[in-house]
Amino acid sequence: MTLKVGVIGTGMIGRDHIRRLTEVVSGAEVTAVTDANEVSAKEVAAGLANATVHVTGEDLIADPNVEAVIVCSWGPSHEQYVVASIEAGKPVFCEKPLATTTAACQRIMEAEVASGKRLVQVGFMRRYDTAYRGLKRAIDSGAVGAPLIYYSGHRNASVPEHYTKDMAIVDTAVHDFDVTRWLLGEELAAIRVLAAKPNRHGGDLQDPLLMILETESGVLVNVETSVNIRYGYDIRGEVVGEDGTAALAETGQVILRTQNSVGVAVPEDWRERFIAAYDVEFQEWINEVGAGNGVTGPSSWDGYAAQSVCEAGVEALYSGDRVEIELGNRPALYS
Amino acid sequence: MTLKVGVIGTGMIGRDHIRRLTEVVSGAEVTAVTDANEVSAKEVAAGLANATVHVTGEDLIADPNVEAVIVCSWGPSHEQYVVASIEAGKPVFCEKPLATTTAACQRIMEAEVASGKRLVQVGFMRRYDTAYRGLKRAIDSGAVGAPLIYYSGHRNASVPEHYTKDMAIVDTAVHDFDVTRWLLGEELAAIRVLAAKPNRHGGDLQDPLLMILETESGVLVNVETSVNIRYGYDIRGEVVGEDGTAALAETGQVILRTQNSVGVAVPEDWRERFIAAYDVEFQEWINEVGAGNGVTGPSSWDGYAAQSVCEAGVEALYSGDRVEIELGNRPALYS
Amino acid sequence: MTLKVGVIGTGMIGRDHIRRLTEVVSGAEVTAVTDANEVSAKEVAAGLANATVHVTGEDLIADPNVEAVIVCSWGPSHEQYVVASIEAGKPVFCEKPLATTTAACQRIMEAEVASGKRLVQVGFMRRYDTAYRGLKRAIDSGAVGAPLIYYSGHRNASVPEHYTKDMAIVDTAVHDFDVTRWLLGEELAAIRVLAAKPNRHGGDLQDPLLMILETESGVLVNVETSVNIRYGYDIRGEVVGEDGTAALAETGQVILRTQNSVGVAVPEDWRERFIAAYDVEFQEWINEVGAGNGVTGPSSWDGYAAQSVCEAGVEALYSGDRVEIELGNRPALYS
Amino acid sequence: MTLKVGVIGTGMIGRDHIRRLTEVVSGAEVTAVTDANEVSAKEVAAGLANATVHVTGEDLIADPNVEAVIVCSWGPSHEQYVVASIEAGKPVFCEKPLATTTAACQRIMEAEVASGKRLVQVGFMRRYDTAYRGLKRAIDSGAVGAPLIYYSGHRNASVPEHYTKDMAIVDTAVHDFDVTRWLLGEELAAIRVLAAKPNRHGGDLQDPLLMILETESGVLVNVETSVNIRYGYDIRGEVVGEDGTAALAETGQVILRTQNSVGVAVPEDWRERFIAAYDVEFQEWINEVGAGNGVTGPSSWDGYAAQSVCEAGVEALYSGDRVEIELGNRPALYS
Repeated sequence: MTLKVGVIGTGMIGRDHIRRLTEVVSGAEVTAVTDANEVSAKEVAAGLANATVHVTGEDLIADPNVEAVIVCSWGPSHEQYVVASIEAGKPVFCEKPLATTTAACQRIMEAEVASGKRLVQVGFMRRYDTAYRGLKRAIDSGAVGAPLIYYSGHRNASVPEHYTKDMAIVDTAVHDFDVTRWLLGEELAAIRVLAAKPNRHGGDLQDPLLMILETESGVLVNVETSVNIRYGYDIRGEVVGEDGTAALAETGQVILRTQNSVGVAVPEDWRERFIAAYDVEFQEWINEVGAGNGVTGPSSWDGYAAQSVCEAGVEALYSGDRVEIELGNRPALYS
Repeated sequence: MTLKVGVIGTGMIGRDHIRRLTEVVSGAEVTAVTDANEVSAKEVAAGLANATVHVTGEDLIADPNVEAVIVCSWGPSHEQYVVASIEAGKPVFCEKPLATTTAACQRIMEAEVASGKRLVQVGFMRRYDTAYRGLKRAIDSGAVGAPLIYYSGHRNASVPEHYTKDMAIVDTAVHDFDVTRWLLGEELAAIRVLAAKPNRHGGDLQDPLLMILETESGVLVNVETSVNIRYGYDIRGEVVGEDGTAALAETGQVILRTQNSVGVAVPEDWRERFIAAYDVEFQEWINEVGAGNGVTGPSSWDGYAAQSVCEAGVEALYSGDRVEIELGNRPALYS
Repeated sequence: MTLKVGVIGTGMIGRDHIRRLTEVVSGAEVTAVTDANEVSAKEVAAGLANATVHVTGEDLIADPNVEAVIVCSWGPSHEQYVVASIEAGKPVFCEKPLATTTAACQRIMEAEVASGKRLVQVGFMRRYDTAYRGLKRAIDSGAVGAPLIYYSGHRNASVPEHYTKDMAIVDTAVHDFDVTRWLLGEELAAIRVLAAKPNRHGGDLQDPLLMILETESGVLVNVETSVNIRYGYDIRGEVVGEDGTAALAETGQVILRTQNSVGVAVPEDWRERFIAAYDVEFQEWINEVGAGNGVTGPSSWDGYAAQSVCEAGVEALYSGDRVEIELGNRPALYS
Repeated sequence: MTLKVGVIGTGMIGRDHIRRLTEVVSGAEVTAVTDANEVSAKEVAAGLANATVHVTGEDLIADPNVEAVIVCSWGPSHEQYVVASIEAGKPVFCEKPLATTTAACQRIMEAEVASGKRLVQVGFMRRYDTAYRGLKRAIDSGAVGAPLIYYSGHRNASVPEHYTKDMAIVDTAVHDFDVTRWLLGEELAAIRVLAAKPNRHGGDLQDPLLMILETESGVLVNVETSVNIRYGYDIRGEVVGEDGTAALAETGQVILRTQNSVGVAVPEDWRERFIAAYDVEFQEWINEVGAGNGVTGPSSWDGYAAQSVCEAGVEALYSGDRVEIELGNRPALYS
């Protein structure tokens, strides 16, 4: 049984997912593609065994040869394609963000709730990383007691020129927000954002940022974004519990002893760090969707909650205040 | 394009590979199975979409719906199925050992050389492990200079009751022999085997063993097998070069701080340690075979060389002497 | 040349310093002791070769056989003995706090400035720890670029029953405040104090606390105090710079592989962690004082600045506000 | 009570010990010095408060103002000064080697046994290193079960030009031999020496060497000397036991994350690595000798046993054979 997948958006990330579905994971076939740039879509289709090029995302979603949809298009278009997929009753995997406003996320949830079942999965790949899964198992095992503080460090060697200061929150820290909610199993309730003395490599950016969040139950969460730190891509996580701590280990697999130093390599970028997580994410999604089961990965609610924290975070960045995050009731579909 | 694979042997390892081909990797389909125990073969086939059960391995190899063969049967039967696959012109993946005697390995090489192309791959999965691959890259980069000593530690928490003292060499250290040849890019030329004071958990076994090997160029290789060491499954490797050293790092991904200790987990067994390596091994084999290219993984020569070291090692274990390893000429097919 | 030292206060810490001066470090002799509890002082003197017992600290300070004074008495008495030592023109080593109020610290500075030279050293022993010294060298070397964030973690397995919530700041975090000022080479300008969900082991305490400080130049400082964390005494420090980070390593010196884990020990308590730092602290003080040079260790200004941060911290703890720290001008003596 | 110490030999190591006795440790005073080079002895004495310069070691030993002797002269002169000290009834600390032949070591033991008490301590400073002491505690605790294999790695960045191939055994590995005997609590019974492919930095040396030793009870000991390895001075030790392993950890105290790497520093040389061990070694010796107790540090027997292993090792290096080590009976004084 091979799942027939249509991909909306054939840019860098779309092409990477198509490669993954075609060459890496088991049980899927890309049968249709589309892109705002038709040339791109045709180019990609030419490299596939049997894929139709559609003019619009809606056409692709309607294609009877498409059983499930992947949305990798420009963020502002996500809502429209996700809702259309829901209306067509087709499972849809949407790269983050689910939508660029909380209102749009709410409209997606309304459509999904109306459909009566979970069809949407959001691309928070960290939940599929073996190190983060180990961290979650450690927390859930009780080995360190109830979590009291969580440190989440998100460091990039550098960022492209178009990166703006809001993006440290909506594009970078959004992963920390989601993974924190998932690790701790509860919602984030408030956020403060403090800017350190700026990194000289960061131009006009306020970088690094320290974000102090509070969960519903009172866990303090400390998110650091340092996006011009030169030394590599470094994802840190440590939960401080009542009886001990659990933290992500270094990822380097070879210890080098040279030139009066002993150590391991730090990844260059997010691709190197999370490539295996993307593979697992898609394999599990294909297995679940292919088996006709509902999806169990990050839901529309998760996308909405992360987006809500981002909006509060941007407000806190500009105001300097502590901003509360109000999510409203969680529909039963997402419980 | 899906590669149609027949599997000879549906025991534990065969079933695991069938699961891998079906649920994990991309591009393959199991179309035929056979086993000395017909009930086992039928049971496995029942869980597959479309697999024929054959009475003999030879029947399976002859099946036109089988494009490539995987041999996971009892070691003494490997030669027969590998040679039959070669004669049928079909690529064959053979779990280690390639054969249980060097003479049998030579017969396989003769058949393969006669066929004019590489068809055989031996299941030395360590070459597909990301940590070992990183170690090889580090050596090949010249970062530590020319290798002078290589330490290879192979530790098991325990071994089953049927484990005999020869198995520390032919079943356990064989992996160390192969990976050493691959890391250093040269042959092993001599071996001594020394037994330490026996581990009280090991019954009558001579355990641990320290094997001192020499490569053609004079690198000293120190292989330790400790197969009753209780604390876990621990695979160590360190190359000492002219300018530095490179070593396998710990594999634990979560640092726990509890009870006056800080550390990471050690794997329980080889499945936990090498599961991902098996996935990569098969994906690369399928990609190569599926593309109609010759295989580039561990060859019949590699299987033969490893077997030769094992035979010399067993002789050294019983005699206490330094035993030289004579491989003879390497056929051009394996250069 | 042996420095004749008088010790005021023969409680636990005083006795430990007397042992250190007598049995560990070079160049000093304890010639006089006193304590509010005369029995304790006599007991200690009985174990010394040649020490006079004085009724009051003032008597001890006046003793011509005392060349330098160590104050280890109850905190509220520090001011009186330190000032008396200054007035007698004798070098004085005062355990932290220098005094229990900033006003008292200022009076000490006034007396010392009036004396025309530095006579006072405050017992901030972390500055003598080899790991912290390595961290400072790493920062000063420029290897990680200009510091932007500093994380300081202060974790105790448990605290005695008389420990109150203010003590997390004035007794525990005071060490973090001092070492941060020293590492970064600048003053702390503001503090916020946030309480996490309380640790169940901590009774009525607000524990852990997260303190967010800002330096004059805009470095963000994150101090965590977790004083009931059970797993051990763990002192963490990481500076995030423009080009990299530098952090205190684990202190365990033996890697144990047992029971599916590999790791090192975490210290039980501060004695184990800092015993060597105390030795270095006293050896350097004796060498400097014995040589007739002015002292160069933590000064009255350092004691005053740390106390000022503590007072602001306590205010912030109760108010929930960001509290600014106003130090006023630094006298030239301390430049 | 100050111990009056005379130092024979004022070369580099002698001067370092004099500095140590004068400025670092407690309870000793250098009252006399001598050296084959009288200018050197006078130069050193000029920097001391109150030290007599003697023409010969025998004069120094006879000086009533000398209570204990330290021998740091040229190796071949050790026997004569140690024996003279014994005959004078004065405790004597002798830098390794105790003597340059086993016969000379035996003559020293005879003299000491005749004197009726332990007067001699040999300068095997590793036994005073906190990491090695931790390793011994770990072994003795039973945490890893009975030792079965011990790995001892001794790596120098480089060696001076006068370093000969025998010195890898008698000057370098001698420390590994002593520390192995001490850690395992038993004698070494046989040795093989194998030379790896030579390091290009090592000129005509056979470097690195792998020495395989056997203890009386059957523990295998693997000593590696790599004395031109460029990356630093690295002392490794790992005991493989029945239930786990214990190993020396890295010694770097600051973790640097820069340039795509995370790691700690490796020491430059033995001074950096063992400076603190020398301090402890002398403090304990002074405390014991000053208290009039017999010395408990490395004994003449330890010096003899190490020398015996060295002689067997050199024979094994030249012959390529396994050489047995015959110590004869251990006098009761050393039990």
